[in-house]
Amino acid sequence: MEAREIRPEEDDSARDRLMAAAVELFARKGYAAATVREIVEAAGVTKPVLYYYFGSKDGIFTEIMGRALTLFEATIGSALDAGGTATERLYRLTDELFGLVLDNLSVVRVAHALYFGPPQDAPLFDFDAFHERLQAVVLGLVNEGMAAGELREGEPEVVAMAVLGAFDTAEGLALCHPEWNVDRTTLTRVLDVVFNGALAAPAEKKESS
Amino acid sequence: MEAREIRPEEDDSARDRLMAAAVELFARKGYAAATVREIVEAAGVTKPVLYYYFGSKDGIFTEIMGRALTLFEATIGSALDAGGTATERLYRLTDELFGLVLDNLSVVRVAHALYFGPPQDAPLFDFDAFHERLQAVVLGLVNEGMAAGELREGEPEVVAMAVLGAFDTAEGLALCHPEWNVDRTTLTRVLDVVFNGALAAPAEKKESS
Repeated sequence: MEAREIRPEEDDSARDRLMAAAVELFARKGYAAATVREIVEAAGVTKPVLYYYFGSKDGIFTEIMGRALTLFEATIGSALDAGGTATERLYRLTDELFGLVLDNLSVVRVAHALYFGPPQDAPLFDFDAFHERLQAVVLGLVNEGMAAGELREGEPEVVAMAVLGAFDTAEGLALCHPEWNVDRTTLTRVLDVVFNGALAAPAEKKESS
Repeated sequence: MEAREIRPEEDDSARDRLMAAAVELFARKGYAAATVREIVEAAGVTKPVLYYYFGSKDGIFTEIMGRALTLFEATIGSALDAGGTATERLYRLTDELFGLVLDNLSVVRVAHALYFGPPQDAPLFDFDAFHERLQAVVLGLVNEGMAAGELREGEPEVVAMAVLGAFDTAEGLALCHPEWNVDRTTLTRVLDVVFNGALAAPAEKKESS
Protein backbone atom coordinates (compact mmCIF):
# COMPACT_ATOMS: atom_id res chain seq x y z
CA MET A 1 0.00 0.00 0.00
CA GLU A 2 2.93 2.27 0.62
CA ALA A 3 3.61 2.13 -3.09
CA ARG A 4 0.42 4.05 -3.81
CA GLU A 5 1.97 7.13 -2.28
CA ILE A 6 4.48 7.39 -5.06
CA ARG A 7 1.92 6.74 -7.75
CA PRO A 8 1.93 9.86 -9.92
CA GLU A 9 -1.31 11.62 -10.76
CA GLU A 10 -1.15 11.08 -14.49
CA ASP A 11 -0.52 7.33 -14.35
CA ASP A 12 -0.57 6.34 -17.93
CA SER A 13 1.53 9.22 -19.06
CA ALA A 14 4.43 8.34 -16.73
CA ARG A 15 4.01 4.65 -17.46
CA ASP A 16 4.05 5.21 -21.23
CA ARG A 17 6.99 7.61 -21.00
CA LEU A 18 8.94 4.98 -19.06
CA MET A 19 8.21 2.29 -21.63
CA ALA A 20 9.11 4.60 -24.51
CA ALA A 21 12.34 5.72 -22.82
CA ALA A 22 13.30 2.13 -21.98
CA VAL A 23 12.79 0.82 -25.49
CA GLU A 24 14.82 3.66 -27.00
CA LEU A 25 17.68 3.03 -24.56
CA PHE A 26 17.57 -0.76 -25.06
CA ALA A 27 17.67 -0.19 -28.82
CA ARG A 28 20.53 2.30 -28.68
CA LYS A 29 22.78 0.90 -25.95
CA GLY A 30 21.72 -2.74 -25.74
CA TYR A 31 19.67 -4.27 -22.93
CA ALA A 32 22.59 -4.98 -20.58
CA ALA A 33 24.11 -1.49 -20.87
CA ALA A 34 20.91 0.51 -20.32
CA THR A 35 20.47 1.35 -16.63
CA VAL A 36 17.37 2.06 -14.56
CA ARG A 37 18.86 5.49 -13.79
CA GLU A 38 19.10 6.36 -17.49
CA ILE A 39 15.56 5.14 -18.14
CA VAL A 40 13.99 7.20 -15.35
CA GLU A 41 16.03 10.27 -16.32
CA ALA A 42 14.94 10.00 -19.95
CA ALA A 43 11.32 9.56 -18.83
CA GLY A 44 11.54 12.49 -16.39
CA VAL A 45 10.49 10.46 -13.35
CA THR A 46 12.19 9.03 -10.27
CA LYS A 47 13.32 5.43 -9.72
CA PRO A 48 10.43 4.53 -7.39
CA VAL A 49 7.99 5.33 -10.18
CA LEU A 50 9.63 2.71 -12.40
CA TYR A 51 9.66 0.20 -9.54
CA TYR A 52 6.03 0.95 -8.78
CA TYR A 53 4.85 0.21 -12.30
CA PHE A 54 7.25 -2.48 -13.45
CA GLY A 55 9.16 -3.81 -10.43
CA SER A 56 12.49 -3.81 -12.27
CA LYS A 57 14.27 -3.31 -15.59
CA ASP A 58 13.32 -6.90 -16.43
CA GLY A 59 9.71 -6.05 -15.64
CA ILE A 60 9.63 -3.13 -18.05
CA PHE A 61 11.22 -5.30 -20.75
CA THR A 62 8.65 -8.05 -20.28
CA GLU A 63 5.87 -5.46 -20.46
CA ILE A 64 7.27 -3.95 -23.67
CA MET A 65 7.54 -7.32 -25.39
CA GLY A 66 4.16 -8.49 -24.10
CA ARG A 67 2.51 -5.36 -25.49
CA ALA A 68 4.27 -5.90 -28.83
CA LEU A 69 2.93 -9.46 -28.99
CA THR A 70 -0.59 -8.22 -28.19
CA LEU A 71 -0.43 -5.60 -30.96
CA PHE A 72 0.97 -8.20 -33.35
CA GLU A 73 -1.93 -10.58 -32.62
CA ALA A 74 -4.51 -7.80 -32.90
CA THR A 75 -3.08 -6.77 -36.29
CA ILE A 76 -3.20 -10.35 -37.57
CA GLY A 77 -6.77 -10.70 -36.30
CA SER A 78 -8.03 -7.53 -37.98
CA ALA A 79 -6.26 -8.32 -41.27
CA LEU A 80 -7.83 -11.78 -41.39
CA ASP A 81 -11.31 -10.70 -40.28
CA ALA A 82 -11.62 -8.08 -43.00
CA GLY A 83 -12.43 -10.81 -45.54
CA GLY A 84 -11.65 -10.95 -49.25
CA THR A 85 -9.76 -13.55 -51.25
CA ALA A 86 -6.74 -15.30 -49.77
CA THR A 87 -4.49 -13.11 -51.92
CA GLU A 88 -6.20 -9.95 -50.70
CA ARG A 89 -5.75 -11.06 -47.11
CA LEU A 90 -2.07 -11.87 -47.72
CA TYR A 91 -1.57 -8.33 -49.02
CA ARG A 92 -3.51 -6.80 -46.16
CA LEU A 93 -1.79 -8.92 -43.51
CA THR A 94 1.75 -8.09 -44.62
CA ASP A 95 0.86 -4.45 -45.21
CA GLU A 96 -0.65 -3.95 -41.76
CA LEU A 97 2.09 -5.87 -39.98
CA PHE A 98 4.70 -3.82 -41.79
CA GLY A 99 2.87 -0.67 -40.66
CA LEU A 100 3.17 -1.99 -37.09
CA VAL A 101 6.90 -2.62 -37.62
CA LEU A 102 7.43 0.91 -38.96
CA ASP A 103 5.59 2.38 -35.97
CA ASN A 104 7.70 0.34 -33.53
CA LEU A 105 11.14 0.15 -35.11
CA SER A 106 12.93 0.41 -31.76
CA VAL A 107 11.04 -2.56 -30.36
CA VAL A 108 11.90 -4.55 -33.49
CA ARG A 109 15.53 -3.48 -33.11
CA VAL A 110 15.65 -4.68 -29.48
CA ALA A 111 14.04 -7.99 -30.49
CA HIS A 112 16.58 -8.51 -33.30
CA ALA A 113 19.50 -7.68 -30.99
CA LEU A 114 18.41 -10.23 -28.41
CA TYR A 115 17.39 -12.84 -30.97
CA PHE A 116 20.62 -12.74 -32.94
CA GLY A 117 23.00 -11.38 -30.31
CA PRO A 118 24.13 -12.63 -26.91
CA PRO A 119 21.37 -12.91 -24.25
CA GLN A 120 22.53 -9.81 -22.25
CA ASP A 121 20.72 -11.08 -19.13
CA ALA A 122 17.36 -10.06 -20.55
CA PRO A 123 14.38 -12.12 -19.34
CA LEU A 124 13.65 -15.10 -21.55
CA PHE A 125 11.20 -14.17 -24.28
CA ASP A 126 10.08 -16.46 -27.06
CA PHE A 127 10.90 -14.30 -30.08
CA ASP A 128 10.35 -17.32 -32.33
CA ALA A 129 6.68 -17.05 -31.38
CA PHE A 130 6.33 -14.00 -33.66
CA HIS A 131 7.92 -15.65 -36.64
CA GLU A 132 6.26 -19.02 -36.21
CA ARG A 133 2.85 -17.44 -35.82
CA LEU A 134 3.30 -15.27 -38.92
CA GLN A 135 4.62 -18.28 -40.84
CA ALA A 136 1.56 -20.35 -39.83
CA VAL A 137 -0.92 -17.62 -40.78
CA VAL A 138 0.72 -16.99 -44.17
CA LEU A 139 0.89 -20.72 -44.85
CA GLY A 140 -2.81 -21.08 -43.99
CA LEU A 141 -3.75 -18.32 -46.45
CA VAL A 142 -1.53 -19.82 -49.18
CA ASN A 143 -3.19 -23.20 -48.69
CA GLU A 144 -6.58 -21.54 -48.94
CA GLY A 145 -5.55 -19.67 -52.11
CA MET A 146 -4.31 -22.89 -53.73
CA ALA A 147 -7.48 -24.77 -52.79
CA ALA A 148 -9.55 -21.97 -54.36
CA GLY A 149 -7.53 -22.12 -57.60
CA GLU A 150 -6.48 -18.52 -56.98
CA LEU A 151 -2.81 -19.44 -56.50
CA ARG A 152 -0.86 -21.73 -58.79
CA GLU A 153 -0.63 -25.27 -57.44
CA GLY A 154 2.70 -26.09 -55.85
CA GLU A 155 4.42 -26.34 -52.49
CA PRO A 156 2.58 -24.00 -50.12
CA GLU A 157 5.65 -23.72 -47.85
CA VAL A 158 7.70 -22.37 -50.75
CA VAL A 159 5.10 -19.77 -51.73
CA ALA A 160 4.84 -18.77 -48.06
CA MET A 161 8.64 -18.27 -48.02
CA ALA A 162 8.43 -15.94 -51.03
CA VAL A 163 5.74 -13.85 -49.31
CA LEU A 164 7.62 -13.81 -46.00
CA GLY A 165 10.81 -12.97 -47.89
CA ALA A 166 9.21 -9.78 -49.22
CA PHE A 167 8.23 -8.91 -45.65
CA ASP A 168 11.63 -9.81 -44.12
CA THR A 169 13.52 -7.75 -46.67
CA ALA A 170 11.31 -4.72 -46.21
CA GLU A 171 11.72 -5.06 -42.42
CA GLY A 172 15.48 -5.48 -42.70
CA LEU A 173 15.83 -2.38 -44.89
CA ALA A 174 13.58 -0.30 -42.64
CA LEU A 175 15.74 -1.35 -39.69
CA CYS A 176 19.20 -1.04 -41.22
CA HIS A 177 18.76 1.51 -43.99
CA PRO A 178 16.17 4.01 -42.79
CA GLU A 179 17.60 6.43 -45.37
CA TRP A 180 16.12 4.25 -48.14
CA ASN A 181 12.62 5.06 -46.91
CA VAL A 182 11.18 1.62 -47.54
CA ASP A 183 7.47 2.10 -46.81
CA ARG A 184 4.22 0.16 -47.05
CA THR A 185 3.88 1.00 -50.75
CA THR A 186 7.30 -0.50 -51.42
CA LEU A 187 6.32 -3.75 -49.74
CA THR A 188 3.08 -3.89 -51.75
CA ARG A 189 5.08 -3.56 -54.95
CA VAL A 190 7.47 -6.32 -53.91
CA LEU A 191 4.43 -8.53 -53.28
CA ASP A 192 3.16 -7.64 -56.77
CA VAL A 193 6.38 -9.19 -58.11
CA VAL A 194 5.91 -12.31 -55.96
CA PHE A 195 2.30 -12.75 -57.10
CA ASN A 196 2.64 -11.80 -60.77
CA GLY A 197 6.22 -12.95 -61.38
CA ALA A 198 9.31 -11.04 -62.42
CA LEU A 199 9.55 -12.72 -65.83
CA ALA A 200 8.05 -11.04 -68.86
CA ALA A 201 4.95 -12.85 -70.07
CA PRO A 202 5.59 -15.21 -73.03
CA ALA A 203 3.86 -12.74 -75.37
CA GLU A 204 6.12 -9.89 -74.20
CA LYS A 205 9.13 -12.14 -74.63
CA LYS A 206 8.17 -12.89 -78.23
CA GLU A 207 7.76 -9.22 -79.02
CA SER A 208 11.31 -8.55 -77.86
CA SER A 209 12.91 -11.45 -79.73
CA MET B 1 62.11 -13.07 -35.20
CA GLU B 2 61.72 -14.55 -31.75
CA ALA B 3 58.22 -15.40 -32.73
CA ARG B 4 59.45 -17.93 -35.27
CA GLU B 5 60.55 -20.17 -32.43
CA ILE B 6 57.00 -20.83 -31.42
CA ARG B 7 55.82 -21.36 -34.97
CA PRO B 8 54.41 -24.89 -35.07
CA GLU B 9 55.50 -27.30 -37.77
CA GLU B 10 52.12 -27.74 -39.39
CA ASP B 11 51.37 -24.01 -39.80
CA ASP B 12 48.15 -24.05 -41.66
CA SER B 13 46.62 -26.78 -39.61
CA ALA B 14 47.08 -24.89 -36.31
CA ARG B 15 46.08 -21.61 -37.94
CA ASP B 16 42.91 -23.11 -39.41
CA ARG B 17 42.04 -24.91 -36.18
CA LEU B 18 42.36 -21.61 -34.30
CA MET B 19 40.07 -19.80 -36.74
CA ALA B 20 37.52 -22.63 -36.66
CA ALA B 21 37.58 -22.78 -32.85
CA ALA B 22 37.28 -19.00 -32.55
CA VAL B 23 34.30 -18.70 -34.88
CA GLU B 24 32.45 -21.51 -33.09
CA LEU B 25 33.06 -19.86 -29.70
CA PHE B 26 32.11 -16.39 -30.97
CA ALA B 27 28.91 -17.88 -32.41
CA ARG B 28 28.02 -19.80 -29.25
CA LYS B 29 29.07 -17.43 -26.45
CA GLY B 30 29.20 -14.06 -28.19
CA TYR B 31 32.38 -12.19 -29.10
CA ALA B 32 32.87 -10.48 -25.74
CA ALA B 33 32.40 -13.64 -23.67
CA ALA B 34 34.75 -15.89 -25.69
CA THR B 35 38.28 -15.82 -24.21
CA VAL B 36 41.67 -16.45 -25.78
CA ARG B 37 42.14 -19.30 -23.29
CA GLU B 38 38.98 -21.03 -24.51
CA ILE B 39 39.95 -20.55 -28.15
CA VAL B 40 43.43 -22.05 -27.77
CA GLU B 41 42.08 -24.92 -25.66
CA ALA B 42 39.46 -25.75 -28.28
CA ALA B 43 42.11 -25.59 -31.01
CA GLY B 44 44.55 -27.74 -29.01
CA VAL B 45 47.36 -25.16 -29.09
CA THR B 46 48.96 -22.75 -26.60
CA LYS B 47 48.32 -19.01 -26.29
CA PRO B 48 51.60 -17.98 -27.98
CA VAL B 49 50.50 -19.83 -31.13
CA LEU B 50 47.39 -17.65 -31.35
CA TYR B 51 49.44 -14.50 -30.68
CA TYR B 52 51.98 -15.55 -33.29
CA TYR B 53 49.42 -15.92 -36.06
CA PHE B 54 46.84 -13.29 -35.16
CA GLY B 55 48.30 -10.97 -32.54
CA SER B 56 45.09 -10.95 -30.46
CA LYS B 57 41.45 -12.02 -30.27
CA ASP B 58 40.64 -8.94 -32.36
CA GLY B 59 43.20 -10.10 -34.91
CA ILE B 60 41.63 -13.52 -35.31
CA PHE B 61 38.20 -11.90 -35.66
CA THR B 62 39.43 -9.52 -38.37
CA GLU B 63 41.02 -12.45 -40.21
CA ILE B 64 37.81 -14.52 -40.04
CA MET B 65 35.68 -11.68 -41.40
CA GLY B 66 38.27 -10.75 -44.04
CA ARG B 67 38.33 -14.33 -45.29
CA ALA B 68 34.53 -14.41 -45.37
CA LEU B 69 34.51 -11.25 -47.50
CA THR B 70 37.09 -12.76 -49.87
CA LEU B 71 35.03 -15.94 -50.29
CA PHE B 72 31.90 -13.85 -50.81
CA GLU B 73 33.57 -11.83 -53.58
CA ALA B 74 35.01 -14.95 -55.21
CA THR B 75 31.56 -16.57 -55.23
CA ILE B 76 29.98 -13.49 -56.79
CA GLY B 77 32.74 -13.39 -59.39
CA SER B 78 32.39 -17.02 -60.41
CA ALA B 79 28.58 -16.83 -60.55
CA LEU B 80 28.72 -13.80 -62.84
CA ASP B 81 31.53 -15.07 -65.05
CA ALA B 82 29.74 -18.32 -65.86
CA GLY B 83 27.55 -16.48 -68.39
CA GLY B 84 23.95 -17.16 -69.38
CA THR B 85 20.91 -14.90 -69.30
CA ALA B 86 20.45 -12.39 -66.49
CA THR B 87 17.83 -14.68 -64.95
CA GLU B 88 20.18 -17.66 -65.08
CA ARG B 89 22.88 -15.62 -63.39
CA LEU B 90 20.45 -14.44 -60.68
CA TYR B 91 19.61 -18.08 -59.95
CA ARG B 92 23.27 -19.11 -59.95
CA LEU B 93 24.39 -16.15 -57.84
CA THR B 94 21.84 -16.69 -55.08
CA ASP B 95 22.30 -20.46 -55.20
CA GLU B 96 26.09 -20.30 -54.85
CA LEU B 97 25.99 -17.59 -52.19
CA PHE B 98 23.47 -19.62 -50.23
CA GLY B 99 25.82 -22.62 -50.51
CA LEU B 100 28.55 -20.41 -49.00
CA VAL B 101 26.18 -19.38 -46.18
CA LEU B 102 25.30 -23.01 -45.43
CA ASP B 103 29.00 -23.95 -45.33
CA ASN B 104 29.76 -21.06 -42.94
CA LEU B 105 26.70 -20.77 -40.73
CA SER B 106 28.76 -19.91 -37.64
CA VAL B 107 30.43 -16.98 -39.40
CA VAL B 108 27.01 -15.75 -40.54
CA ARG B 109 25.73 -16.14 -36.97
CA VAL B 110 28.62 -14.06 -35.58
CA ALA B 111 28.04 -11.39 -38.22
CA HIS B 112 24.31 -11.22 -37.42
CA ALA B 113 24.97 -11.00 -33.67
CA LEU B 114 27.36 -8.06 -34.12
CA TYR B 115 25.26 -6.36 -36.78
CA PHE B 116 21.99 -6.47 -34.85
CA GLY B 117 23.31 -6.76 -31.31
CA PRO B 118 25.49 -4.54 -29.13
CA PRO B 119 29.07 -3.99 -30.39
CA GLN B 120 30.69 -6.29 -27.75
CA ASP B 121 34.06 -4.55 -28.22
CA ALA B 122 34.64 -6.38 -31.50
CA PRO B 123 36.82 -4.53 -34.05
CA LEU B 124 34.82 -2.36 -36.42
CA PHE B 125 33.83 -4.31 -39.49
CA ASP B 126 31.63 -3.01 -42.26
CA PHE B 127 28.96 -5.71 -42.34
CA ASP B 128 26.84 -3.49 -44.58
CA ALA B 129 29.49 -4.06 -47.25
CA PHE B 130 28.14 -7.60 -47.78
CA HIS B 131 24.56 -6.53 -48.14
CA GLU B 132 25.22 -3.45 -50.23
CA ARG B 133 27.46 -5.37 -52.61
CA LEU B 134 24.90 -8.15 -53.05
CA GLN B 135 22.15 -5.56 -53.52
CA ALA B 136 24.19 -3.79 -56.22
CA VAL B 137 25.00 -7.02 -58.09
CA VAL B 138 21.39 -8.23 -58.02
CA LEU B 139 20.15 -4.81 -59.12
CA GLY B 140 22.63 -4.80 -62.02
CA LEU B 141 21.38 -8.21 -63.20
CA VAL B 142 17.74 -7.14 -62.88
CA ASN B 143 18.45 -4.02 -64.96
CA GLU B 144 20.14 -6.19 -67.55
CA GLY B 145 17.20 -8.62 -67.60
CA MET B 146 14.71 -5.78 -68.07
CA ALA B 147 16.77 -4.22 -70.84
CA ALA B 148 16.86 -7.61 -72.61
CA GLY B 149 13.07 -7.98 -72.35
CA GLU B 150 13.62 -11.09 -70.27
CA LEU B 151 12.11 -9.54 -67.14
CA ARG B 152 8.85 -7.64 -67.04
CA GLU B 153 9.37 -3.88 -67.13
CA GLY B 154 9.02 -2.21 -63.76
CA GLU B 155 11.01 -0.84 -60.88
CA PRO B 156 14.29 -2.77 -60.80
CA GLU B 157 14.80 -1.99 -57.08
CA VAL B 158 11.51 -3.69 -56.27
CA VAL B 159 12.32 -6.82 -58.29
CA ALA B 160 15.76 -6.90 -56.63
CA MET B 161 14.02 -6.79 -53.24
CA ALA B 162 11.88 -9.80 -54.16
CA VAL B 163 15.00 -11.78 -55.19
CA LEU B 164 16.92 -10.70 -52.09
CA GLY B 165 13.86 -11.50 -49.97
CA ALA B 166 14.00 -15.12 -51.12
CA PHE B 167 17.67 -15.20 -50.17
CA ASP B 168 17.20 -13.44 -46.80
CA THR B 169 14.39 -15.76 -45.78
CA ALA B 170 16.33 -18.88 -46.72
CA GLU B 171 19.34 -17.54 -44.77
CA GLY B 172 17.19 -16.65 -41.77
CA LEU B 173 15.61 -20.10 -41.65
CA ALA B 174 18.96 -21.87 -42.07
CA LEU B 175 20.28 -19.79 -39.18
CA CYS B 176 17.33 -19.95 -36.79
CA HIS B 177 15.54 -23.15 -37.76
CA PRO B 178 18.22 -25.63 -38.82
CA GLU B 179 15.68 -28.38 -38.13
CA TRP B 180 13.67 -27.22 -41.18
CA ASN B 181 16.56 -28.23 -43.44
CA VAL B 182 16.20 -25.31 -45.82
CA ASP B 183 18.70 -26.13 -48.56
CA ARG B 184 19.78 -24.82 -51.96
CA THR B 185 16.90 -26.63 -53.68
CA THR B 186 14.43 -24.85 -51.41
CA LEU B 187 15.86 -21.45 -52.34
CA THR B 188 15.69 -22.32 -56.05
CA ARG B 189 11.99 -23.15 -55.65
CA VAL B 190 11.31 -19.88 -53.84
CA LEU B 191 13.01 -18.07 -56.73
CA ASP B 192 10.75 -19.99 -59.14
CA VAL B 193 7.80 -18.35 -57.36
CA VAL B 194 9.42 -14.90 -57.60
CA PHE B 195 10.12 -15.31 -61.32
CA ASN B 196 6.94 -17.10 -62.40
CA GLY B 197 4.50 -15.61 -59.89
CA ALA B 198 2.39 -17.23 -57.21
CA LEU B 199 -0.92 -16.47 -58.92
CA ALA B 200 -2.56 -19.07 -61.13
CA ALA B 201 -2.40 -18.12 -64.80
CA PRO B 202 -5.64 -16.54 -66.11
CA ALA B 203 -6.47 -19.77 -67.99
CA GLU B 204 -6.11 -21.85 -64.82
CA LYS B 205 -8.27 -19.35 -62.97
CA LYS B 206 -11.04 -19.72 -65.53
CA GLU B 207 -10.98 -23.48 -65.25
CA SER B 208 -11.57 -23.30 -61.53
CA SER B 209 -14.42 -20.79 -61.69
